[in-house]
Amino acid sequence: MSEDRVYTACVLIIGNEILSGRTKDSNLAWLAERLNEAGIRLREARVVSDVEDDIVRAVNEVRGRYDYVFTTGGIGPTHDDITADCVAKAFGVPLREHPEALARLAAGYANPAVDLNAARRRMARVPEGGTLIDNPVSRAPGFKIGNVYVMAGIPRVMQSMFDSIRPTLKGGKPLLARQIGAELPEGRMAEGLGALQNRYSDLEIGSYPFNRMGKVGAAIVLRGTDKARIDAAAEELIQLMKSLGGEPVEEPITSG
Amino acid sequence: MSEDRVYTACVLIIGNEILSGRTKDSNLAWLAERLNEAGIRLREARVVSDVEDDIVRAVNEVRGRYDYVFTTGGIGPTHDDITADCVAKAFGVPLREHPEALARLAAGYANPAVDLNAARRRMARVPEGGTLIDNPVSRAPGFKIGNVYVMAGIPRVMQSMFDSIRPTLKGGKPLLARQIGAELPEGRMAEGLGALQNRYSDLEIGSYPFNRMGKVGAAIVLRGTDKARIDAAAEELIQLMKSLGGEPVEEPITSG
Repeated sequence: MSEDRVYTACVLIIGNEILSGRTKDSNLAWLAERLNEAGIRLREARVVSDVEDDIVRAVNEVRGRYDYVFTTGGIGPTHDDITADCVAKAFGVPLREHPEALARLAAGYANPAVDLNAARRRMARVPEGGTLIDNPVSRAPGFKIGNVYVMAGIPRVMQSMFDSIRPTLKGGKPLLARQIGAELPEGRMAEGLGALQNRYSDLEIGSYPFNRMGKVGAAIVLRGTDKARIDAAAEELIQLMKSLGGEPVEEPITSG
Repeated sequence: MSEDRVYTACVLIIGNEILSGRTKDSNLAWLAERLNEAGIRLREARVVSDVEDDIVRAVNEVRGRYDYVFTTGGIGPTHDDITADCVAKAFGVPLREHPEALARLAAGYANPAVDLNAARRRMARVPEGGTLIDNPVSRAPGFKIGNVYVMAGIPRVMQSMFDSIRPTLKGGKPLLARQIGAELPEGRMAEGLGALQNRYSDLEIGSYPFNRMGKVGAAIVLRGTDKARIDAAAEELIQLMKSLGGEPVEEPITSG
């Protein structure tokens, strides 16, 4: 059952490759949508580099601030994969080889005695008190400790890990949304929109300008947990747009 | 002239639309590349929602930590555009209408007396002590205060703003990079890569696994400011890959 409490989350993306521009992150948008569906508000996202102090500080800053922290990246076998070490340090606990994690890794190799070398065994290390997160794609598990969920950076693997923990996450009421667009400049709607937001302080009203083939306008997004309130605000918004000479159009909310 | 000092930056992306998954951010990857070229290391990126306390806290946390902070988003005419207010609050200074900003806005309207309404005038507000950032695309300027550069969220506008401030930014030596890939699993290269990183502690060596049409391998990125050192490490890396039976291939470093 959903409840009135608001659950919050932060996504922590770990990796130089995002900050150098080499790799365009796609995990954030995917997680944002799934968390919204789960009734969990993604309140912040951070990208930090593969530097121990930076990761430890970020983990400790955000795990106290939000109900959930989801990390992506830095859990492979190479020297630049230091997420497990940093999370253990952030929690002040030792990092130990986890027997079940080791067994899962071993099961993936034809000849574990040879193939499960020291580097690969690093992937079986879990901070004391942590529990495993299943990895149906490539076996090497993630882990959860406290409210921190440590997942892979490769989107396909991260997604399978998230899907495996999803049923265990408690959320509040899912955020519902409607988007209504019109070829009216933001600056002409702004006063009315501000007044609408004041009357509907339980909703989040966002204005996103567009320029589609020379047509200037804005898409207005109404978000909240109460469908009746969203619909009522949408009706007022439609009237506002019409009063300014616009032709309001209901639009799907899509990812950019 | 470049110098040995390392300059660091944080990008602060302001907007519910990124955290809801509605909009996929593309500003981070663009800024990451430009900053690298300018010899400025992007050390962190944060996405925060349109909530005053969250923005004020984030601005204050990161402006003390890095040489430069670049914000994107939240500078339009609507009620959800609160970046200027929050930056003023973070610096503890009043937010005032800036005459030059107002003049630039007015120049964009056929009939400023009517069109430059109260909502649009909000876009002329600048924290006391701030200076304008040109906006060649849509006039409404950004601003700089201290080490914080406040820019638009719309990529085309943000890019034109960044291009206008780019010549004023001091950077160190640009980061150079080479990427060499091989169809070898990370776990087989990891030991040698770790040893290579230890011998070249002045370089950043990153390993990024891939699975290209069923072929498992990894791309190794070598970054640093000294071309000769990168080339020397690359030569050793190539030998390492060959010794493991791989066929190393020099690859372009591309975004996503």
